[in-house]
Amino acid sequence: METLSAHRAFGGVQGVYRHASSSTGTAMTFSVYVPPHEEGETLPVVWYLSGLTCTHANVTEKGEYRRACAELGLIFVAPDTSPRGDGVADDPDGAWDFGLAASFYVDATVEPYAKHYRMWSYVTDELPALIAAEFPADMGRQAIMGHSMGGHGALTIGLTYPGRYRSISAFAPIVAPTQVPWGQKALPGYLGDDPVGWRRHDAVALIEDGARVADMLVDQGEADGFLKDQLRPDLLARACADAAIALTLRMQPGYDHSYYFISTFMEDHLRWHAARMV
Amino acid sequence: METLSAHRAFGGVQGVYRHASSSTGTAMTFSVYVPPHEEGETLPVVWYLSGLTCTHANVTEKGEYRRACAELGLIFVAPDTSPRGDGVADDPDGAWDFGLAASFYVDATVEPYAKHYRMWSYVTDELPALIAAEFPADMGRQAIMGHSMGGHGALTIGLTYPGRYRSISAFAPIVAPTQVPWGQKALPGYLGDDPVGWRRHDAVALIEDGARVADMLVDQGEADGFLKDQLRPDLLARACADAAIALTLRMQPGYDHSYYFISTFMEDHLRWHAARMV
Repeated sequence: METLSAHRAFGGVQGVYRHASSSTGTAMTFSVYVPPHEEGETLPVVWYLSGLTCTHANVTEKGEYRRACAELGLIFVAPDTSPRGDGVADDPDGAWDFGLAASFYVDATVEPYAKHYRMWSYVTDELPALIAAEFPADMGRQAIMGHSMGGHGALTIGLTYPGRYRSISAFAPIVAPTQVPWGQKALPGYLGDDPVGWRRHDAVALIEDGARVADMLVDQGEADGFLKDQLRPDLLARACADAAIALTLRMQPGYDHSYYFISTFMEDHLRWHAARMV
Repeated sequence: METLSAHRAFGGVQGVYRHASSSTGTAMTFSVYVPPHEEGETLPVVWYLSGLTCTHANVTEKGEYRRACAELGLIFVAPDTSPRGDGVADDPDGAWDFGLAASFYVDATVEPYAKHYRMWSYVTDELPALIAAEFPADMGRQAIMGHSMGGHGALTIGLTYPGRYRSISAFAPIVAPTQVPWGQKALPGYLGDDPVGWRRHDAVALIEDGARVADMLVDQGEADGFLKDQLRPDLLARACADAAIALTLRMQPGYDHSYYFISTFMEDHLRWHAARMV
């Protein structure tokens, strides 16, 4: 693991790192904030998965999470949103909703994507092992959150491994990709004609198929231009109600899809997670 | 005035605006955060001047000021660091420490800079009038702060108009440009062979020449690579001591010159200003 940058912030260290990923077969970059802590102490880990067009850098620069992480004693990990580099296939038309920065956090089975697009394995297996080895992390206490496509990733991963992640939250997540255009392009594109596979990467379908967690927190801006066609929190609300999952869904008047929205409610989400990782 | 963007954040609105400046003879872009407030209420204004290579966007995206401004009821204004556009002279060698994004907040008298580089007038006269006209601002309560070159601007403007700005603070300011390389290039470059003019744009010289304020807050990272050659807070400490100005100079171990440093201490600065604008 190579350190690309390290800056003192709120008494801890905000770092950006790069390593050779065996999952993706590429170099992968990610950021980690380690808050101030005692020598030898291990700390709970919050995973933050980013949305379409993003890298680790968007939340690192604009997410405003460090102050709360320093207060609450949380390590904050922000992976990239896809493999990158020479030989990594992109959308054939260069669209921003598929391919680079648009992995949808699946292990692709369709070529040419299957070769490198193995973000599910990367985020759930390889990177956690690296974090455990290189940082003062208590891997018995993990939480997962994300934004938009990363909210989709957080919900699907958290619902799939409820024993591993103590809590789940999301900002403006794609809750039912099999029912909206972004997902109806991405899931067949990466997984082929495999409706069973699609449902494993659809939070609403996972719940319908029996996945259970105690509760979730979702914030959604009412002025978000993607709300009605792509995000559809109403579908998550109905699925959670039917499954007796305690969803806290907060519709936020006037807020859009940007990091101005995310940063406003970041502290609430980190407190939500900290309370569940005591 | 044209609105380039407006986003809900922390209950208020973060906007970016553009207008035709008569001071610089160019279009100028700036950002303003207006916190939540009652209809008809006017609010104190904090001016934030940015450093070399920056625009309004750096602090707007990375400064982490909105949460505290929302709590404290402060309008936060971030101007650009120089005129820009066709016909605006830059450093003849394209250096980043002179010309574009490096105005040093003076009214240049040397051609070709005198034509557009009138940032002193812009920041102290033209833009305040626009803010007063377009935003719910109480111009009887203003404070000024800045970073690096913008810290220089904040100190020199605040010391020149102590009746107008109720408080002054800076992150890693250039305190004595006549004594350091950045300033020894910029001040003659903009003002020519005019040592009297240079001293009006040097905080330490202004204090030596009689400028007085009650107090100032300065944070300086000890791991800042510019500390010893360009910033020299020791010179400000000595001048303030000699002048009985209550300088709170905080040397911050491990912190560098970046927005990771600034964002860490932003809340302290905003509380400092809010307490002086009651």
